[in-house]
Amino acid sequence: MRVGVIGLGNMGEGVARNLLKSGREVVAWNRSPAAVDALVEAGALKAADPAEAFRAEVVFSMLSQDDVIEEVVVGSGALEKAAAGTTHVNLSTVSVAFADRMEALHQERGLSYVAAPVLGRPDVAAAGQLNVLCAGEPSGVAKATPLLELFAKQVWPLGDRASNANVVKLACNFALASMIETLGEAGALVDGYGVEPSRLYEIMTGTLFAAPAYKTYSGLIAERKFSPAGFKLPLGLKDVRLALAAGEARQTPLPIASVVRDAFIEAIAQGDQDKDWSALAAGAFRRAGRPLD
Amino acid sequence: MRVGVIGLGNMGEGVARNLLKSGREVVAWNRSPAAVDALVEAGALKAADPAEAFRAEVVFSMLSQDDVIEEVVVGSGALEKAAAGTTHVNLSTVSVAFADRMEALHQERGLSYVAAPVLGRPDVAAAGQLNVLCAGEPSGVAKATPLLELFAKQVWPLGDRASNANVVKLACNFALASMIETLGEAGALVDGYGVEPSRLYEIMTGTLFAAPAYKTYSGLIAERKFSPAGFKLPLGLKDVRLALAAGEARQTPLPIASVVRDAFIEAIAQGDQDKDWSALAAGAFRRAGRPLD
Amino acid sequence: MRVGVIGLGNMGEGVARNLLKSGREVVAWNRSPAAVDALVEAGALKAADPAEAFRAEVVFSMLSQDDVIEEVVVGSGALEKAAAGTTHVNLSTVSVAFADRMEALHQERGLSYVAAPVLGRPDVAAAGQLNVLCAGEPSGVAKATPLLELFAKQVWPLGDRASNANVVKLACNFALASMIETLGEAGALVDGYGVEPSRLYEIMTGTLFAAPAYKTYSGLIAERKFSPAGFKLPLGLKDVRLALAAGEARQTPLPIASVVRDAFIEAIAQGDQDKDWSALAAGAFRRAGRPLD
Amino acid sequence: MRVGVIGLGNMGEGVARNLLKSGREVVAWNRSPAAVDALVEAGALKAADPAEAFRAEVVFSMLSQDDVIEEVVVGSGALEKAAAGTTHVNLSTVSVAFADRMEALHQERGLSYVAAPVLGRPDVAAAGQLNVLCAGEPSGVAKATPLLELFAKQVWPLGDRASNANVVKLACNFALASMIETLGEAGALVDGYGVEPSRLYEIMTGTLFAAPAYKTYSGLIAERKFSPAGFKLPLGLKDVRLALAAGEARQTPLPIASVVRDAFIEAIAQGDQDKDWSALAAGAFRRAGRPLD
Repeated sequence: MRVGVIGLGNMGEGVARNLLKSGREVVAWNRSPAAVDALVEAGALKAADPAEAFRAEVVFSMLSQDDVIEEVVVGSGALEKAAAGTTHVNLSTVSVAFADRMEALHQERGLSYVAAPVLGRPDVAAAGQLNVLCAGEPSGVAKATPLLELFAKQVWPLGDRASNANVVKLACNFALASMIETLGEAGALVDGYGVEPSRLYEIMTGTLFAAPAYKTYSGLIAERKFSPAGFKLPLGLKDVRLALAAGEARQTPLPIASVVRDAFIEAIAQGDQDKDWSALAAGAFRRAGRPLD
Repeated sequence: MRVGVIGLGNMGEGVARNLLKSGREVVAWNRSPAAVDALVEAGALKAADPAEAFRAEVVFSMLSQDDVIEEVVVGSGALEKAAAGTTHVNLSTVSVAFADRMEALHQERGLSYVAAPVLGRPDVAAAGQLNVLCAGEPSGVAKATPLLELFAKQVWPLGDRASNANVVKLACNFALASMIETLGEAGALVDGYGVEPSRLYEIMTGTLFAAPAYKTYSGLIAERKFSPAGFKLPLGLKDVRLALAAGEARQTPLPIASVVRDAFIEAIAQGDQDKDWSALAAGAFRRAGRPLD
Repeated sequence: MRVGVIGLGNMGEGVARNLLKSGREVVAWNRSPAAVDALVEAGALKAADPAEAFRAEVVFSMLSQDDVIEEVVVGSGALEKAAAGTTHVNLSTVSVAFADRMEALHQERGLSYVAAPVLGRPDVAAAGQLNVLCAGEPSGVAKATPLLELFAKQVWPLGDRASNANVVKLACNFALASMIETLGEAGALVDGYGVEPSRLYEIMTGTLFAAPAYKTYSGLIAERKFSPAGFKLPLGLKDVRLALAAGEARQTPLPIASVVRDAFIEAIAQGDQDKDWSALAAGAFRRAGRPLD
Repeated sequence: MRVGVIGLGNMGEGVARNLLKSGREVVAWNRSPAAVDALVEAGALKAADPAEAFRAEVVFSMLSQDDVIEEVVVGSGALEKAAAGTTHVNLSTVSVAFADRMEALHQERGLSYVAAPVLGRPDVAAAGQLNVLCAGEPSGVAKATPLLELFAKQVWPLGDRASNANVVKLACNFALASMIETLGEAGALVDGYGVEPSRLYEIMTGTLFAAPAYKTYSGLIAERKFSPAGFKLPLGLKDVRLALAAGEARQTPLPIASVVRDAFIEAIAQGDQDKDWSALAAGAFRRAGRPLD
């Protein structure tokens, strides 16, 4: 079975390698060819353009945002040239509106569109332990699922409407961003009294908040380990912006998300645009006149 | 060894019963005598007034808020009459400023003051599985710790300054309140697209947010089980207000806490003052024009 | 001199009639022809399509939002067919990004683009007393200014970059929305103590806040006169959204604008989408459990 | 007629001098005697203690905050020693709760309490052009009014309940703080596009926002003239905190006030505690990475 992969960033590469390991024939395309060449050494075929990657039974795309996908998948003509029945599995975190538009575009062309945004950072992708939120056209979902399982710890079905997987993904990333900002504020609060934030985090993650997300992020914050970035701060801003837009489209105010959005913008204005989004927490210390570094 | 207990609300009673189980001699006082009588049947002695409960080596107090403690412990004259060397362990969640004041008052009288606010709801207290944050005068802490362990899953030492335990407690409750509001907003977001909030919560607690707090509260929210209240909404407002005041005293802005405070006030204005503080999450659905009930 | 007018809503009609009064030859286009026919009776010529309205020395457009202008001016082919040297004066409140894009599109075609968003409600437009913020290609501005003065109380030049007029307009509308929400909150605060909000507003507008905006809007709020709408609530949301987007593009957090945005969304969710944006103030009373009506 | 004056800060001194000008016999007390001596040269009598200043038909107090008034007026015993029928006019901005408590204390002692908080900065007080919000026991109000008119541009009656004047004062100062923060954000928004904030302010105050408050404060912001302080930043924080507390006591959320409170705390944390509260606006530029100075 031939599988296309479009986008070999630090997430997409992990996905592609897991597909190769399973013995699938993988044809890959990436804007900067270097990433493709590395994968070719691991046994992949090199696609000359996105359309060639679309000449497959199932194509996975993992790109940074709506307009990039628009250009690579639609603008390039790849979608028009794709054979009827092809299944396109979009692993990217996109806006709900864009997911709906993509679903319609695929239907018109007799292609099936599956939204499969993932939870997990690059190391988790490489380890094939991602949590995958999956929704879309049923036959496409049926074809995609066994392949998703090649790099997923678990696949979470979310029904026939592709964008439902995206809105759930945005809700999860909003919850993460809210957690990061809250860890920052709570840490700055105790720090003002001479209590080490790390002690607070130790207590939180040792009791009520004993969750992977709290352990990972409170650790990064306590150690001020904001580089290298697993997920850059501007991407966090993007996801919170998309969550706010999705809320607005259904008249759902998200006041916490609004505060987090402002905090992201402030962090970028203060020069943290290349840091991991856990650096969002540093803002609470900075605003208190006690910057972390 | 004689142990005093002041305040037999749903938390204090659990503490007292665990002390009794251990064979300690417990002398208890409570404003409404009914609660004391029930405890007397279990072997406790009834104190005629707070001062009598203070005639003990160690006295635990578990009362609702600063001014109540002020009145019961100071206003009643109990503190003045207490024998030098008595250790007072305050399990209540109080303001940082009040904890500092109590510490000073005790020092003046040769008494030792220990702040030991607890994490856990009434059922946890009854089960003797509370997490206890403990700070204060070292000899008092040394005396208190073995007794705290009678009803604690773990005792977390936080140094010599009593109020440090209180600021950490406030930071934890702020983090809980932020989590509840965030669960509400994230749930309302997906609900706007026809996705069951319970499905989002299942994914969150099955992946990144697999923590006791998330499981407990997302369950209460998904089932709209806001009564009976384990911790009433106005108490949540109180703790967030105290966190904000503690932040202000150290020039630490807490924008998320400010949003949560407004949401608590709105919930009370909408008639939820007798519900559990998990009902805070209902506000997000109400503001979106899709009330939970 | 021939002047085109595109868009005859309650603002555009006022503009067109003032141009007619001045004796200019006005050729008008509007999606729904009824509005054009009314204007034809007043002496205007009817344009069959936007391109015909563009066959003029200066064309004014007053449309609701970016995508409508995109469709009517660009999508219709009007811009392509326009004669070199034509000046297009866009009176609409658009996004900064869209204004930059329009400016570039016009330059490519040898047309000059002038941004001239206006301050004032329909009655003010009819009276020819608008305040006009004006920026863009200098020769176009020179040509537009005497015409703008036909319906302006004052024209405020803002330089060569068209979008500068738009960002100032967005800043003004954000300030108005902040004022409306603040009037609502301040009114709800005193109302909680039995003081009539109208009494507070009387004191404010009689002292520190003796400004037209405060008098107009506090009057509408005190009299709960939210219909008919001079400026509909969703248009207010749009402008605050555009201000937030313009801020984000320059890393400028606008926390007050974020709160106002959430309040607009909530008002729409509560059913106020057809009311005047002064109804935003009603939210403060609703959240306090004391709805205005 | 003998008039007492307690508190000769930059506001109180202006009041006292206007009373002296009118030929009233003024007996003044101030913590630091220097201010009294200066006034004695202008013809005032020096009170040895607050009680002596209370030996008058009408006593004005102008002190910084609740606890200072508590100490000077109640703690000093002045109130107990005051002759029945004495009218105490409190010009200070105090909390609603404190005003209610003072009103009750005075009633118990057969004294009449009048709340008369003022709108205006020191120069306005010196010029005798303050706007005075006045409420309380009717006979006391009747006695106070002609005296208030000696330094007031206008006296605004607010009924029999003293605290009503205080809640209106807090609402006005909240509206001012909201305006300052909004001017900062709107200015930072246009500044991001190379438009001088002063140009925006010129347009605002030349059109919709042609009000004294907007002219005064936008001028101070445009000129970065934050010292000397007419009203210090921490006093602004105090008033917004009191407005929030007054709102909470009546279940009235004030989300804009919450944002402003956080901004005040941040400004103080950044070192602006001795600047005028107009410096609040500088925060918006600082958060955007473009500090004003």
